Amino acid sequence: MLAADPTGEDHAMLTAHHLRRSQSERIVWLCEELAIPYTLVLYDRQPDGLAPPDYKALQAFGTAPIVTDGELALGESGAIVDYVTAKHGGGRLAVGPEAANFADYLYWFHFANGSMMPARMVAMIAGRLGLSEENPAARALLRRSKLAYAVIEDRLGRADYFAGPELTAADIMMVYTLTTTRVYTPYDLAPYPNVRAYLQRIGARRAYQRAMAKAEPGFAPLLE
Amino acid sequence: MLAADPTGEDHAMLTAHHLRRSQSERIVWLCEELAIPYTLVLYDRQPDGLAPPDYKALQAFGTAPIVTDGELALGESGAIVDYVTAKHGGGRLAVGPEAANFADYLYWFHFANGSMMPARMVAMIAGRLGLSEENPAARALLRRSKLAYAVIEDRLGRADYFAGPELTAADIMMVYTLTTTRVYTPYDLAPYPNVRAYLQRIGARRAYQRAMAKAEPGFAPLLE
Repeated sequence: MLAADPTGEDHAMLTAHHLRRSQSERIVWLCEELAIPYTLVLYDRQPDGLAPPDYKALQAFGTAPIVTDGELALGESGAIVDYVTAKHGGGRLAVGPEAANFADYLYWFHFANGSMMPARMVAMIAGRLGLSEENPAARALLRRSKLAYAVIEDRLGRADYFAGPELTAADIMMVYTLTTTRVYTPYDLAPYPNVRAYLQRIGARRAYQRAMAKAEPGFAPLLE
Repeated sequence: MLAADPTGEDHAMLTAHHLRRSQSERIVWLCEELAIPYTLVLYDRQPDGLAPPDYKALQAFGTAPIVTDGELALGESGAIVDYVTAKHGGGRLAVGPEAANFADYLYWFHFANGSMMPARMVAMIAGRLGLSEENPAARALLRRSKLAYAVIEDRLGRADYFAGPELTAADIMMVYTLTTTRVYTPYDLAPYPNVRAYLQRIGARRAYQRAMAKAEPGFAPLLE
């Protein structure tokens, strides 16, 4: 555990607890995009790849991401992004019901952990268990993963960002599924030029660069 | 495909497309709780258990649930629940940033498909592939599933509903994971008295009863 603020002052109530190479990079990026005060604490994974005990002790379910805010310890990427944008970000990066792209925003925000992460998880499990596409059960499970990339590629051919022309919290949710998940389960993006162009746009953002430099020092984001 | 309204009139813009024994039961229940006008269309699964082609054709990714609303075809449970409560339900069943239980609401709303459904999916995959807990990889994957039930049991010992004393959209998201998923992957609820008492409260609700009778005729909800 390493407090990013060398003064050690408790100047921010909001603390992002970042488990290295995990979904919690989203929260660091969100805080940087919103330019809100926050404290960052980094946690290394154990040799077995799992979160260390002090991470798991932060919150009952114990999976990344976790933020603390006063007495509150909150998990789940979607919950934290909704909470931080509403309580600390003045609603910036969210899209409200009055906007024409409200449904697009909601769809991609929820697609990230509702469909894309499970698809990536299935691919990881298949890899761990040594299943190839020659196994009929594995093939059926992996088919949805390919479809997920196809619908993403299509979307990014019609809009610069997932919810439309501007970056929103839907991008904060989606980018991790296209980048750092490939540390665990490689996936060739060569057939997806729109995805690759999108990731270059993301990588050019100062807030993303700052977030990844703070959250993952020495790690080059998988933008290609 | 069967339109629930025998007159066939297009009296409601909002249409819930329900794939039998799937997450789309949530949307039928939501509409019944909100008492809003909607059209229900039922789709049977194919003999192989998958959604039929006319269901997949409704929306690009093609997984249940899907709603249509004028020109819009929207997927993802979380997106649809947020959309319907905001656009058709006047915000009822949602919890806003000003409420003391805002974070609890967000957490359980997102836990449903962010953590609980993946946990249930892993159990299903392990079952399909014939993996037992004697397999070390399977054991590691199944450990998180058990923890999910433990944190749910704890929560329902401290509150009548997931977000607090009242039913909210967080319950709409969570209940399916505790009931109908057990059609595919049985899970013994005997060790979880709080979960069983909660499901009895849900099963006593008229709106839930109406929704399940319409969405799953001839199927007794797995409330025990």
